[in-house]
Amino acid sequence: MEVDEVVCLPRLSRVAVCGGTHGNELSGVYLVRELLKEEKKVKEKEDEEEPVAVLMVLSNPRAMQQCRRYVDTDLNRCFTHATLNGPMSDTVPYEMIRARELNAMLGPKGSPEAVDLVCDLHNTTANMGLCFIAYSDCDWICLHIFRHLQRQMPDIPMRYIHFDVSSKESYSLDSVGKHGFAMEIGPQPHGVVRSNIYTAMKVGVQHMLDWVRFFNSGTIFEGGFVDVFTMVKHIDYPRDSETHNITAAIHPQLQDRDFCLLHPGDALFQTFSGETVRYKGSEPLYPFFINECAYYEKGIALSLARKKHVMIPSIRVRTGQEQEANEQGFASEEEE
Amino acid sequence: MEVDEVVCLPRLSRVAVCGGTHGNELSGVYLVRELLKEEKKVKEKEDEEEPVAVLMVLSNPRAMQQCRRYVDTDLNRCFTHATLNGPMSDTVPYEMIRARELNAMLGPKGSPEAVDLVCDLHNTTANMGLCFIAYSDCDWICLHIFRHLQRQMPDIPMRYIHFDVSSKESYSLDSVGKHGFAMEIGPQPHGVVRSNIYTAMKVGVQHMLDWVRFFNSGTIFEGGFVDVFTMVKHIDYPRDSETHNITAAIHPQLQDRDFCLLHPGDALFQTFSGETVRYKGSEPLYPFFINECAYYEKGIALSLARKKHVMIPSIRVRTGQEQEANEQGFASEEEE
Repeated sequence: MEVDEVVCLPRLSRVAVCGGTHGNELSGVYLVRELLKEEKKVKEKEDEEEPVAVLMVLSNPRAMQQCRRYVDTDLNRCFTHATLNGPMSDTVPYEMIRARELNAMLGPKGSPEAVDLVCDLHNTTANMGLCFIAYSDCDWICLHIFRHLQRQMPDIPMRYIHFDVSSKESYSLDSVGKHGFAMEIGPQPHGVVRSNIYTAMKVGVQHMLDWVRFFNSGTIFEGGFVDVFTMVKHIDYPRDSETHNITAAIHPQLQDRDFCLLHPGDALFQTFSGETVRYKGSEPLYPFFINECAYYEKGIALSLARKKHVMIPSIRVRTGQEQEANEQGFASEEEE
Repeated sequence: MEVDEVVCLPRLSRVAVCGGTHGNELSGVYLVRELLKEEKKVKEKEDEEEPVAVLMVLSNPRAMQQCRRYVDTDLNRCFTHATLNGPMSDTVPYEMIRARELNAMLGPKGSPEAVDLVCDLHNTTANMGLCFIAYSDCDWICLHIFRHLQRQMPDIPMRYIHFDVSSKESYSLDSVGKHGFAMEIGPQPHGVVRSNIYTAMKVGVQHMLDWVRFFNSGTIFEGGFVDVFTMVKHIDYPRDSETHNITAAIHPQLQDRDFCLLHPGDALFQTFSGETVRYKGSEPLYPFFINECAYYEKGIALSLARKKHVMIPSIRVRTGQEQEANEQGFASEEEE
């Protein structure tokens, strides 16, 4: 590949790694605590300047303290333009206040002051391996980081999920950065930390930060293809029309089969009296977030995605000169 | 075996099946709801008298509604003699009030009016299969039911756990009945229902009720041996002395290995910085409740048990005449 086909992108000077956005998703909670401890030790030892500033954030300390997903409302749905900028009443939920604090710390969302990259750490009860979840299927930074992790961690099943939502409507903490993604790892019960899941997250974060350092120091990353799973729709549990209680669980033939193609007519649910409910869609799709604990209240038993092959270009960091030219209004290869 | 070696025990006229004692352990919640629905249908169809009265109980409706283990305090620790009979203040936790209601409904604990058998349904995040947990290693009723389930469900790993606690100090709902045990099934994340775990519980309860009907109608159950795991001690996570936060997770080599003998020197924990912490006990013991979600706050990372082989005698129900004789104070083979 020729050098002139390389897309030049701005330097990633400030990266945020966030845990505890959901207070009972414990890998991120304990990993950020551990990284804070290690950072303290390193700082005590040497005064060297890091080539990238890494902010470690514990997003929802009150929910962490209670080991619950949230206290008043789901923090990771509070980062829409409307919620961040709407009027504040006296009875505003704790998480809405906390969302504005985090937006002030890591954003403001959509502004030039926002951190360059947010990696928000999550766990799921679904058998999803390690997933990147992002709002873009053409954010070359996120896609290149994903590809780097895939290569560095070949034993961990890894997928890139795309939620096709506009920047204004995007609701999660990672949407506050210039680039951002959730790193979602499972299966792990909420309120529990499993060593293998914790270690996968730790290694994943280390490779992510390594990639940022390589990128900032001028490494050219070759282009190629990435499989992207774009969310198409959610499916709710069968429910009792009066009580709204669920009347079935995920079918044993579907449970734990995240990202295995679901065909029309395949078993979807098993009712509590023993009958099978089948998938009535007309198109085979990829199920994910199968039986995620926190989604019972959101009316989601599983989500379905379409897979596509995305070509990503080679990239490298924009040099100081290119940066200046860009700031003075000269043509640049890439718009931010 | 000779007929005169058969131990005669009183009829089991009233049996309680309880779910939702912990509001986020969903197999029991949905199973009891389903049994209540089925019971309603059967009652509508026929007027036949059941040979055993089965009470279906949803123990902690408030916690169920919030999908939490409990609202104020752990209901399943409220059934000690002291808690049930102590003074009541104005600020008494919800679960203490509910415990008295349940004791009035199914007990009073220790009295002749108490139901004959309580089966309380639980889930665990630990890989424990189906366990009976009881306060006695010589309750022939519980042990025979356990043996019946073992034979009827050969594909489900099944163990009998004994907590050596006096009747007065026994704290769980099942201690309210004349006989009682918790049926604990895992692994299942709290707040999630997995179809395979739900079905194992449903089939287990059906076999338990079948056994009671057989017993009441005069079937002789042959004696034999049962492996009983008697709890010896709990082990807590390594913790930070200042924050009291855990500093390690269950070691990957121990995770999911419930009831696999743990030897001195075996890996126990992996710290969040990557070191291995080993088991320092002097005696090999059987670990269980490894990484149970609800026990982080109780300071229990796992429990350890000693296994023994218990001989249980043949049993049959005491006939009407024997019952009368017993009530008039004549000698009987067995004391209750």
